[in-house]
Amino acid sequence: MSDRIEPRVLKGFRDFLPEVETRKKNLMYTLERAFELYGFTPIDTPILEFTEVLLGKGGGETDKQVYRFLDQGNRDVVMRFDLTVPFARYIALHKNELYLPFKRYHIAKVWRGENTQRGRYREFTQCDFDIVGTDGASADFEILLLMRKSFKALGIQNISIRLSHRGIFNALLSRTGLEKKATDILRTVDKLSKIGESKVRIILSEMAGDKNADLILDFIRREGDFTCTLEKMDSLAGGVPEEKKRLRLLHQYMEETGSSSVFTLDPSITRGLDYYTGVVFETFLDDMPEIGSVCSGGRYNNLASLYTSDKIPGVGASIGLDRLMAAMEASADGQENGSVSQVLIFCLDEELYGYYHSLAETVREHRINVEVFPEKKKLSQQFIFAEKKNIPLGIICGKDERSRNVFSVKDLRKRKSYDDQNSESGIQLIHNLLERHS
Amino acid sequence: MSDRIEPRVLKGFRDFLPEVETRKKNLMYTLERAFELYGFTPIDTPILEFTEVLLGKGGGETDKQVYRFLDQGNRDVVMRFDLTVPFARYIALHKNELYLPFKRYHIAKVWRGENTQRGRYREFTQCDFDIVGTDGASADFEILLLMRKSFKALGIQNISIRLSHRGIFNALLSRTGLEKKATDILRTVDKLSKIGESKVRIILSEMAGDKNADLILDFIRREGDFTCTLEKMDSLAGGVPEEKKRLRLLHQYMEETGSSSVFTLDPSITRGLDYYTGVVFETFLDDMPEIGSVCSGGRYNNLASLYTSDKIPGVGASIGLDRLMAAMEASADGQENGSVSQVLIFCLDEELYGYYHSLAETVREHRINVEVFPEKKKLSQQFIFAEKKNIPLGIICGKDERSRNVFSVKDLRKRKSYDDQNSESGIQLIHNLLERHS
Repeated sequence: MSDRIEPRVLKGFRDFLPEVETRKKNLMYTLERAFELYGFTPIDTPILEFTEVLLGKGGGETDKQVYRFLDQGNRDVVMRFDLTVPFARYIALHKNELYLPFKRYHIAKVWRGENTQRGRYREFTQCDFDIVGTDGASADFEILLLMRKSFKALGIQNISIRLSHRGIFNALLSRTGLEKKATDILRTVDKLSKIGESKVRIILSEMAGDKNADLILDFIRREGDFTCTLEKMDSLAGGVPEEKKRLRLLHQYMEETGSSSVFTLDPSITRGLDYYTGVVFETFLDDMPEIGSVCSGGRYNNLASLYTSDKIPGVGASIGLDRLMAAMEASADGQENGSVSQVLIFCLDEELYGYYHSLAETVREHRINVEVFPEKKKLSQQFIFAEKKNIPLGIICGKDERSRNVFSVKDLRKRKSYDDQNSESGIQLIHNLLERHS
Repeated sequence: MSDRIEPRVLKGFRDFLPEVETRKKNLMYTLERAFELYGFTPIDTPILEFTEVLLGKGGGETDKQVYRFLDQGNRDVVMRFDLTVPFARYIALHKNELYLPFKRYHIAKVWRGENTQRGRYREFTQCDFDIVGTDGASADFEILLLMRKSFKALGIQNISIRLSHRGIFNALLSRTGLEKKATDILRTVDKLSKIGESKVRIILSEMAGDKNADLILDFIRREGDFTCTLEKMDSLAGGVPEEKKRLRLLHQYMEETGSSSVFTLDPSITRGLDYYTGVVFETFLDDMPEIGSVCSGGRYNNLASLYTSDKIPGVGASIGLDRLMAAMEASADGQENGSVSQVLIFCLDEELYGYYHSLAETVREHRINVEVFPEKKKLSQQFIFAEKKNIPLGIICGKDERSRNVFSVKDLRKRKSYDDQNSESGIQLIHNLLERHS
């Protein structure tokens, strides 16, 4: 065949090999269990939507980055670029079927035709969880608690969640007559950790003058503990009783649930995105602060305004799964890849395949993952196969053993053999050997 | 806002509401556990690929049905329309990283711009599992066993798996000089259950003449048990020792594993697709034969020929998840939707939110899903919320109870209250009430 095609993938897209996909699935499964523990339910939305529905009638700045095309029916369609806009559309469409307050999670892929430098992918997985239909402090706090729980469930104990309140920042800007430049100022402050204070000062000075730049930089500096920082924010912003009350309540809940050591009030947290109106937060791994926030979010008080006149407040957060996975892999170096199969039944004699498969079924009844080597090959090749796959245990049975109704169990890692096991003793032995391994 | 946008979805695409998505996730999770029990590992591939890679240099008949477009970089790309072609590409690209024989499963969405009549969707989920790198009978049989196990794991005991061998059918066609019309004849026979024997006879007669039509119709008729049918197939095809041996071996394995009651040799099973070369099979639900096959597949002996000169044989099957879910829902009428949350903590007093969240965390430590009602609303409204969501249990605690360190547990289905529980007795009670429910 001279017409052979090179088996390549698009730039910014990835195949997932078994080990990585297994880790990803385990991670998602762990998060889903955590979300369900807090009463969040899964939803799903289509990957393709009408461009007008996701981007609005004009199409926005996002335009350049999205995968947009005309389908067979000449409809202008777009692949989803986040999980927030489809959720707003979903809530507007189904609000009568969903009893509010509504708590959902959604773990799914999204696509952006971004520059693929610096390890960015064009296809990546987001993990969002939100509570909509309530603007209470309890919902804000539940999201914060669940963020903490999610990382704990993944075995990551040392995290810091930094939070602030967008309303207080807005009050500061409003007091200094800078509301119209709010978006640009927020985006500049959001870059603080990336570009450093001196560069931020230069940009802010250009936008707002030296005096205001100093005021903003003073505002975003922490001042002692939660309460002290809050007092300072309140005073610089000219008094914000509602916002102050909300942050005080959250602080009280932190104290009452014994979780306050995880949380810091940090006025430099602003989140660049326009739609936040209340608390905003970011999460950092204490052992790898350099990778930036791995879980961010906040309160928005009018999620679905593009689609409905109903005001639907909400609060939510999003975990960047790809970045988190990369971080977990970097910190777990030298960790061996686990095998899905726990036991390999070797093929000593082709005539015994019916028996091998019966035996496999019996062992599987004990929730042990078993595979049968599918061909009569040299035993040495079968051993190499087991080793490459990291399969910890083997079962070996030839004609003579079959006639005596016994088999050998091999601990392939320790190269140790336990001969003449019957079905009962063999399965017990496999259980014990697997437990010792794990 | 006069510019409001109608929140609609594309025809052939669906939102998944929480109950349906929960069922779908549970179904996928159950299947994944079954696959892993047999040593299959998960993989994933990109949703977008180069058109040339998935459709070949010419682009095929599938062309009209696929979502194909030029991306931002003017690359000709296509959304995957099945999981088989990307798998062939994956194997060719990664064959040196995957030690063969290799067993994978892949549960993922695919897209086809098909006619949306008769309940067909343009976005749907496929579930494929394959063993590649071996052409042994043991692998054929392992796929068959796993098909049986998958349905058993889903609680579906009464299934029939009908199988045949494409090589025998090919020998029959070759004997009658009809090889060149093989694809059309196979597709016609494949329609037998849909259009009936008399229509199939008319079409076959037009293609191959009356005599050959009769021969083919005779061939695809079962004749007694497995062995008798096999003898008849062999004789009509003019002797096919290799294929006969393979089917005999599979029959022997069925007998030896006590699974033969599930399997039938049915020469009318041909599978329309060109790439099958060996055994082919379909699965029917005994209680709903009218919905057709819910899991089909077979052996192909040159999966990745488009991409590599290596011959990579394999065998696999695919479950149509959407059709299966529809069937399971149709047969489970009247079944109540379960709630994710098992306990709702009511809000009697806003000042107790810190305590409510502490209590929720304590109960969650016992792997019980808990949510806190996020606002101070009338109790009657909170009860309606719990009822709409089918939450079985409630915890009620006011200031007086808080001061005495107790709370009430409500069985919301039976409208029964258990007052003055402390943390220990309350959690024990919740455990017992939930067990009685399940």
